[in-house]
Amino acid sequence: MLGVCDRGTGRAVSGAIPVCIIGASGYTGGELLRLLAMHPNAEVVIATSREYAGKPIGYVHFNLRGFYKGLRFSPLNIDEITDKCEAVFLAVPHGASLELVPKLYETGLKILDLSADFRLKNPEEYKRWYGREHPYPDLLEKAVYGLPELHRDEIRNARLVAVPGCNATAAIFAAAPVVKEKLVDLDHLVIDVKVGSSEAGSKPSPGDHHPERENAIRPYSAEGHRHVAEVEQELGMLAGRDVRVAFVPHAVSAIRGALATLHAWLADGADEMKVWRAYAAMYGKEPFVRIVRTGLLRYPDPKYVIGTNFVDVGFAVEKRIGRMAGFAAIDNLVRGAAGQAVQSFNIMMGFDETLGLLYPPLKPA
Amino acid sequence: MLGVCDRGTGRAVSGAIPVCIIGASGYTGGELLRLLAMHPNAEVVIATSREYAGKPIGYVHFNLRGFYKGLRFSPLNIDEITDKCEAVFLAVPHGASLELVPKLYETGLKILDLSADFRLKNPEEYKRWYGREHPYPDLLEKAVYGLPELHRDEIRNARLVAVPGCNATAAIFAAAPVVKEKLVDLDHLVIDVKVGSSEAGSKPSPGDHHPERENAIRPYSAEGHRHVAEVEQELGMLAGRDVRVAFVPHAVSAIRGALATLHAWLADGADEMKVWRAYAAMYGKEPFVRIVRTGLLRYPDPKYVIGTNFVDVGFAVEKRIGRMAGFAAIDNLVRGAAGQAVQSFNIMMGFDETLGLLYPPLKPA
Amino acid sequence: MLGVCDRGTGRAVSGAIPVCIIGASGYTGGELLRLLAMHPNAEVVIATSREYAGKPIGYVHFNLRGFYKGLRFSPLNIDEITDKCEAVFLAVPHGASLELVPKLYETGLKILDLSADFRLKNPEEYKRWYGREHPYPDLLEKAVYGLPELHRDEIRNARLVAVPGCNATAAIFAAAPVVKEKLVDLDHLVIDVKVGSSEAGSKPSPGDHHPERENAIRPYSAEGHRHVAEVEQELGMLAGRDVRVAFVPHAVSAIRGALATLHAWLADGADEMKVWRAYAAMYGKEPFVRIVRTGLLRYPDPKYVIGTNFVDVGFAVEKRIGRMAGFAAIDNLVRGAAGQAVQSFNIMMGFDETLGLLYPPLKPA
Amino acid sequence: MLGVCDRGTGRAVSGAIPVCIIGASGYTGGELLRLLAMHPNAEVVIATSREYAGKPIGYVHFNLRGFYKGLRFSPLNIDEITDKCEAVFLAVPHGASLELVPKLYETGLKILDLSADFRLKNPEEYKRWYGREHPYPDLLEKAVYGLPELHRDEIRNARLVAVPGCNATAAIFAAAPVVKEKLVDLDHLVIDVKVGSSEAGSKPSPGDHHPERENAIRPYSAEGHRHVAEVEQELGMLAGRDVRVAFVPHAVSAIRGALATLHAWLADGADEMKVWRAYAAMYGKEPFVRIVRTGLLRYPDPKYVIGTNFVDVGFAVEKRIGRMAGFAAIDNLVRGAAGQAVQSFNIMMGFDETLGLLYPPLKPA
Repeated sequence: MLGVCDRGTGRAVSGAIPVCIIGASGYTGGELLRLLAMHPNAEVVIATSREYAGKPIGYVHFNLRGFYKGLRFSPLNIDEITDKCEAVFLAVPHGASLELVPKLYETGLKILDLSADFRLKNPEEYKRWYGREHPYPDLLEKAVYGLPELHRDEIRNARLVAVPGCNATAAIFAAAPVVKEKLVDLDHLVIDVKVGSSEAGSKPSPGDHHPERENAIRPYSAEGHRHVAEVEQELGMLAGRDVRVAFVPHAVSAIRGALATLHAWLADGADEMKVWRAYAAMYGKEPFVRIVRTGLLRYPDPKYVIGTNFVDVGFAVEKRIGRMAGFAAIDNLVRGAAGQAVQSFNIMMGFDETLGLLYPPLKPA
Repeated sequence: MLGVCDRGTGRAVSGAIPVCIIGASGYTGGELLRLLAMHPNAEVVIATSREYAGKPIGYVHFNLRGFYKGLRFSPLNIDEITDKCEAVFLAVPHGASLELVPKLYETGLKILDLSADFRLKNPEEYKRWYGREHPYPDLLEKAVYGLPELHRDEIRNARLVAVPGCNATAAIFAAAPVVKEKLVDLDHLVIDVKVGSSEAGSKPSPGDHHPERENAIRPYSAEGHRHVAEVEQELGMLAGRDVRVAFVPHAVSAIRGALATLHAWLADGADEMKVWRAYAAMYGKEPFVRIVRTGLLRYPDPKYVIGTNFVDVGFAVEKRIGRMAGFAAIDNLVRGAAGQAVQSFNIMMGFDETLGLLYPPLKPA
Repeated sequence: MLGVCDRGTGRAVSGAIPVCIIGASGYTGGELLRLLAMHPNAEVVIATSREYAGKPIGYVHFNLRGFYKGLRFSPLNIDEITDKCEAVFLAVPHGASLELVPKLYETGLKILDLSADFRLKNPEEYKRWYGREHPYPDLLEKAVYGLPELHRDEIRNARLVAVPGCNATAAIFAAAPVVKEKLVDLDHLVIDVKVGSSEAGSKPSPGDHHPERENAIRPYSAEGHRHVAEVEQELGMLAGRDVRVAFVPHAVSAIRGALATLHAWLADGADEMKVWRAYAAMYGKEPFVRIVRTGLLRYPDPKYVIGTNFVDVGFAVEKRIGRMAGFAAIDNLVRGAAGQAVQSFNIMMGFDETLGLLYPPLKPA
Repeated sequence: MLGVCDRGTGRAVSGAIPVCIIGASGYTGGELLRLLAMHPNAEVVIATSREYAGKPIGYVHFNLRGFYKGLRFSPLNIDEITDKCEAVFLAVPHGASLELVPKLYETGLKILDLSADFRLKNPEEYKRWYGREHPYPDLLEKAVYGLPELHRDEIRNARLVAVPGCNATAAIFAAAPVVKEKLVDLDHLVIDVKVGSSEAGSKPSPGDHHPERENAIRPYSAEGHRHVAEVEQELGMLAGRDVRVAFVPHAVSAIRGALATLHAWLADGADEMKVWRAYAAMYGKEPFVRIVRTGLLRYPDPKYVIGTNFVDVGFAVEKRIGRMAGFAAIDNLVRGAAGQAVQSFNIMMGFDETLGLLYPPLKPA
């Protein structure tokens, strides 16, 4: 990490992959800048922002004062990106990627799209949840859902990775092992998510105004949050059948962090040991997944993964009534966005998957 | 409310019921003192505290500086209580009421017990959840579960009211209407609760130390929280059959507030209109229950009932997969403890049920 | 407080003063609505809002659901106000009162202006701080600075009360006793203020976006906050000479609350006893001021006045280097705005000054 | 940072300095473990804890699950430390170092003491502030005050570094440039500090119980905080004369972060340009100090240095009345404790001063 302050010169350093971040002034863009500042094999050479074009990075991202001294936000210029970069991260609002990705795809760049535009494989599902025909169904097919623990091999060969949503990431991690092993009743899956305020992005809004957002315990999108589509897609693939999920996200009082709580009924023959084995089988060797079972804290809490790409998972089984709860805790901006994107980037580039990402979270945080 | 500062003289003012608070230095005790300072027909004449006996009320309850000028915490003295008071509130740890209530009951005092000791009607259930035989099963029988919206008539004639737990109160309010009307599949009920830090009381502990508790999104007691027993008892009564609930509470980052989210599958024939009618039928005329459907915020958030006895309820129905979510938001220290106790006290005394309790919450808070 | 839910019918109830709130949908307006809902002698009959005209009160003020059932926001109509009301509260942005107050003043209504427009007595000071000539210097003269503990008699006879700013209120309360008694070096006064996010109002902004505002410890307006003008005016009057104040406000992480810390050097002959006497002389008999000296918490913290009109004051003297600190803690929306306005309203109307305002704060809050 | 998970084997890796942390289970100890996990040239081989001896690191430090897999907390054993380590960090309560440091010093180990026990050079000052004679005045003389920006050369040759307190660090950074250049009236210096809850350590206490600590704006130690002694010592050295400081810390609502606000009057001839030059002269080339002047945020806020060793400094000059404010923002656990210790460790070892410490803070955080 030595010398990180000297980086960000606006040109590729020797041996580093030159990359571009489109939409670099928001929270996800800022998080990509933060993570890539610590990445030994990547160098951000273009960071676009419509609003702040011409300003230094630290003008907006106060945390990055002193970093990226040679770089300023610039307007979007696809020719320049094609010319200078090997990979591009899109940290743009949903819908904007629909226009940009096809153009970028043609140029042969590796693309990591953090929007929702290319996450669903099935164009009909896209239409159901987003209310319009997907204009590029062929690209839907080529895109890989960028959850490395489920799609590592496809990511390796992908040119377009659709980075999962934060709520979806937490939900899938909580449920995947027991859904895959069919240890639970797949017809009565509930996933209740609690998430911090940074999820909604950097643009002020009445619901995220501090006096309204702080102390909130506020359900939202209680009957059709769009991340459900991703969750059902991925869990369905694991189960080998259609899966429907009762899903309610809640805005709670934290800046970062998302916890997914799976509530499920045990299938016949399932018990605590089998549940444990399912989690261990899926996550035991994953460098970024930590199974929480012991210690002073028995279940995952996103508080203890803040700032990192870790996913803490855990579970509880209540024998009395044959049910279980599964938990997954993430930092919504890292594992739920920028970190997961860098992890996929590492895989696409043939790097060690953990490059630039394997440092400990803060505590207390 | 005029002249409230002149109150708290340690003797009954004309026309007011003299009451005692046992365990007055904790959060629940403090909240009883706060609420009763505004009550036109009650006067706290004894406030016991082992730790702070001899100290003025404001020594501990900084909010009450200037109030209760003539009153100091005193050691517990049942004779004095019997002599001076007509009603007694027990704000003591679970287990302590088991010793005190029988003695107090004999004296003929009206008793409002805020502990868990007399909430369960079935001694076997008590044994299952609390790990020992209940020593006074006859008192269990006489005790009334102090949730006025469900047991108003019994409370009117009760001498012993067992005030519900905070998580249980929120859970029951969220689920009661649809359980009673059997609009949901009673075999797959999930209740996911999120609650603030004051729930755990005023005694410092590692888990509630500010650096650990702030920003937490932390599941706890995920496979056997004791409030489940109360919830299943009350929902079972409403349904006229055994009901089991998958229940997980989560510590979230707020001081006050609890939100219960019911996740359920619609029964055959149930739809949004029927769900709405069930809530309206049960709560439409209740002075403390507000059904949230319109406005800038579509679902309940405990943030907007803070400091009061209100319960905000609401729901969402997802037709796509035949499910619903039900919500109830409370202030855990008021509706989840002291306020609900005062509401029951009003009923027991034949007062208007809302006496001293009907003032608006804060916003923002 | 009984029956408060029946209030807010849009017409004056017998014996109550009909009042209007101009700008009723913001935080200060909402707080006026909350406080007046508990006021036995006042009735809000008009609540104006440009943005929400036609909507029920609870549409915006979620805390007030169930209250003011007969009232809706309405557009501003001065004739109607004149016709129906005896007093009017202006909870409008600074500058807007400059246009409204002169018109309202003509009609003979009692006016409580919560903006900054009429707080300064000296038109030159107004020009210096607000950058333009005051268009109504005669009204500046007639306006009374609505800090009852300093201007009670003038308020009694006023038709126009300029309610102090929240930071200024806290600052003046912290410093007034020792400035008046000249116990401190008047040439080196420092007032350092810490304040919660609701101070900035209900309109979303980048600086008050939850992810940016939460956890902030952020100085602002460090060299010319406009409240300095009020503070210097009032302290100057008390001292009988010009007083200049080094003043820096800081945004800290709370929704409500403001603490002013006066840092000062003791004048010759001043000592702890004299400082104590100065506070006691000025505040000892004030119903809303509590001098904090004993108990588990030795200094004021706004946390324990939240929701109320109380001011907790205190101080510390460091003999070693002949200095002192003075503290005043308020709820910025109540004592720093709406509550102080109602207190002045009570005085103007000849009511008991504490009417509708004397109830205990929350703890914990 | 690659391979960090493989570290913590309990033995020195090739080329790394083996170090010990005494008192490794508290917040400061945990922060040392976190930082040293990222340090390329150091390896923690012993981590002592009385309470958790035998437990794995992640049992207590949930953030470090997956790290330090080969290491467990162990009881204190000075022989073993001497045998295995080259440097030792003491993260023990004040007073405990008085016993340990002399023993460790004899062994020739490099010592970084994070307690207050060896910070004051003058034994009389120690007695004044700590109420007893210092038992090792000779070690006071040998100890170097570990603020690298002021004492870099002495640290290079030190065997005992006394790491500054968090409030003191922030205070000194805010004031040092203008005190050194005598741009302010040295007889009227005020430093007002605001600090998060982690400052008080990991041990639960009534004042840091979440419901009491959250939302607090609470002055404490308002007339004799012990960090004043350090601040006056260091500012006095810079000024070449005795300096006294009016100092009040305030507990505000954040977990991490401390902001010091210097309030001062300008000396004759001082102006904004000279103040700016003083800050630039002292900090312009420091790798960990960032001078904040431009961008969307004009003054330092500890929020934007969280998790790092950075100090953000800034100032404001109010010409009208010849005053200034100076600001320094730090993470109290990093720059106010563990990070500053590692920075000094780097200097003592002849490493690049920034080793393991130069990564960007989080935003939002």
